[in-house]
Amino acid sequence: MTGTLPTAVDAVAWHVRPALTASLDRLTPMMRRVSGYHLGLFDREGNPASGGGKSLRPALALLSARAAGASAERGVPAAVAVELVHNFSLLHDDIMDGDTERRHRPTAWTVFGSSAAILAGDALLTLSQELLLDEDTKGARWAARCLAAATQRLITGQTADLDFETRDDVTLDECVAMASDKTASLLACASSIGAMLVSASPRLVAGLADFGTRLGLAFQLTDDLLGIWGDPEVTGKPVLSDLRTRKKSLPVVSALCAGTPESQRLSDLLRTSGELSEEDLRLAAKLVEDAGGRAWCEAEAARQLDAARDGLADSGVPDPIIAEFMEIAQFVTSRDR
Amino acid sequence: MTGTLPTAVDAVAWHVRPALTASLDRLTPMMRRVSGYHLGLFDREGNPASGGGKSLRPALALLSARAAGASAERGVPAAVAVELVHNFSLLHDDIMDGDTERRHRPTAWTVFGSSAAILAGDALLTLSQELLLDEDTKGARWAARCLAAATQRLITGQTADLDFETRDDVTLDECVAMASDKTASLLACASSIGAMLVSASPRLVAGLADFGTRLGLAFQLTDDLLGIWGDPEVTGKPVLSDLRTRKKSLPVVSALCAGTPESQRLSDLLRTSGELSEEDLRLAAKLVEDAGGRAWCEAEAARQLDAARDGLADSGVPDPIIAEFMEIAQFVTSRDR
Repeated sequence: MTGTLPTAVDAVAWHVRPALTASLDRLTPMMRRVSGYHLGLFDREGNPASGGGKSLRPALALLSARAAGASAERGVPAAVAVELVHNFSLLHDDIMDGDTERRHRPTAWTVFGSSAAILAGDALLTLSQELLLDEDTKGARWAARCLAAATQRLITGQTADLDFETRDDVTLDECVAMASDKTASLLACASSIGAMLVSASPRLVAGLADFGTRLGLAFQLTDDLLGIWGDPEVTGKPVLSDLRTRKKSLPVVSALCAGTPESQRLSDLLRTSGELSEEDLRLAAKLVEDAGGRAWCEAEAARQLDAARDGLADSGVPDPIIAEFMEIAQFVTSRDR
Repeated sequence: MTGTLPTAVDAVAWHVRPALTASLDRLTPMMRRVSGYHLGLFDREGNPASGGGKSLRPALALLSARAAGASAERGVPAAVAVELVHNFSLLHDDIMDGDTERRHRPTAWTVFGSSAAILAGDALLTLSQELLLDEDTKGARWAARCLAAATQRLITGQTADLDFETRDDVTLDECVAMASDKTASLLACASSIGAMLVSASPRLVAGLADFGTRLGLAFQLTDDLLGIWGDPEVTGKPVLSDLRTRKKSLPVVSALCAGTPESQRLSDLLRTSGELSEEDLRLAAKLVEDAGGRAWCEAEAARQLDAARDGLADSGVPDPIIAEFMEIAQFVTSRDR
């Protein structure tokens, strides 16, 4: 990860990483090892490592506890639980998608085998519920229900994503719904689960969840833009990577559905069999841009980000907390994240 | 399934099957279809079917509610939740084990693909927690925690089971621990979760869980005996099936660990490379028997069954309910189940 980390994300390491590591001690040595490797906490031999994901979801969870007037500390179980669910889904998705690299390291299933990676995902999903059930409060039950509902939407999103691979008639609505399920639902949960855990008002929780949904859509729109026009040195992926794999990403589908002559040319190009040449890839990127796919995504991301900020203010989130939420939002929708 | 169904298992169909079917309506059409096919509720096109598993775990869950003086009806959410967890683990295990047939039908992953089967397992696991979190009682939280803990033990058991495949030094203690995790833990949960849901006394719940643990061990011992000496017409598997696959089952491992001359001959035979001939298989079965593996399993199953009955009586379970529990226990440890 490059760029400057927002304060809230940086602070997470201090609050959440020890609790996340400790939660893995509840697993058997084998499950702890596979999960810890996947999370970047250990290397493949089980020795401590300094890697790890962006901690975006834990940062949002802690902020949401603070938005409800509680200390960040009180949001920690929620932050760990949501990070565990995120990583359960990555463990399983990497197997289904056949992805061999994540965060610049070999994926867990390539190191430990698919069976161990399936089981580790199952263990993390179960552990996420156990952490919340450990707390005997109304707020913990609310948080556990929210997390389970978000998990079902992750599953729905991944089902749609796999289905899209074999279809060439995906609509923009379907593509946005997939992003809502696969990305926005867990960010909505992350942005509100700390507040749920400390039994905040339903109005505040709804406002925070709405912020998270919009942040999630802006995040996915940005991710899909970077998947075509991102700097390979920053993204760690080859140039024009999502076109190479003919991914039905938001810029591509919005271009295909725009009804322009370029839409038709793009459609014809993507339907050709065999690998696309570098020239084809550059042409495809230009067609996506000329059909308005890039501009639509940029405008939609900006619109979601504005609406996200307005929603926070309307829900009574204190100004300094809004500033921290928006610092995260700006970061995850920037070109150099 | 052949043989006469115990009253308690038979009654389950009326109480649990509609609730189980209804719970799947909360899933997306694709997840509902894969899960419903796996559960035997639908055929592969999604039309109603009359198949399904033995309903052993739901039957135990309903009985445990009745053991606590509540109606069977009140145990239904617990019965459905435990059946969902059982089927989550079957869906994932079938992929890991490469099994192509279950309950005389092609396994879900062979029909819908591994990705859909992984996702359906994830969806059922999540749904099991959602059903219990729907109920806002102390008992529901207790039940949800018990089910999550049992799920972690299922994962531990499956990890050990996969590990055993590549080892030839498995001890009898390890083999019993694996059966405790993979089979007994969920039967312990099933035998007590209905009582938990209706907030029974900890003493009663502990007694019921102890019954379930012992029933689970007796069940696995019987299953492993049938895996060698079962009638193919009843088990649906080829004769001497577990020897064919060189499974480290309880009779085999107890024979290998007995320190007799037959133990050594069996070990040598099972270490030979290539497929075992029919003659080898018959010899292996004789060696397991001569080394005392069969007798040990039969005696241990009987001992667990006796202890199971005594435990129920000591925990204050009413006699007519004990009779129903033992009817199930006799059934699942009989030769013709």
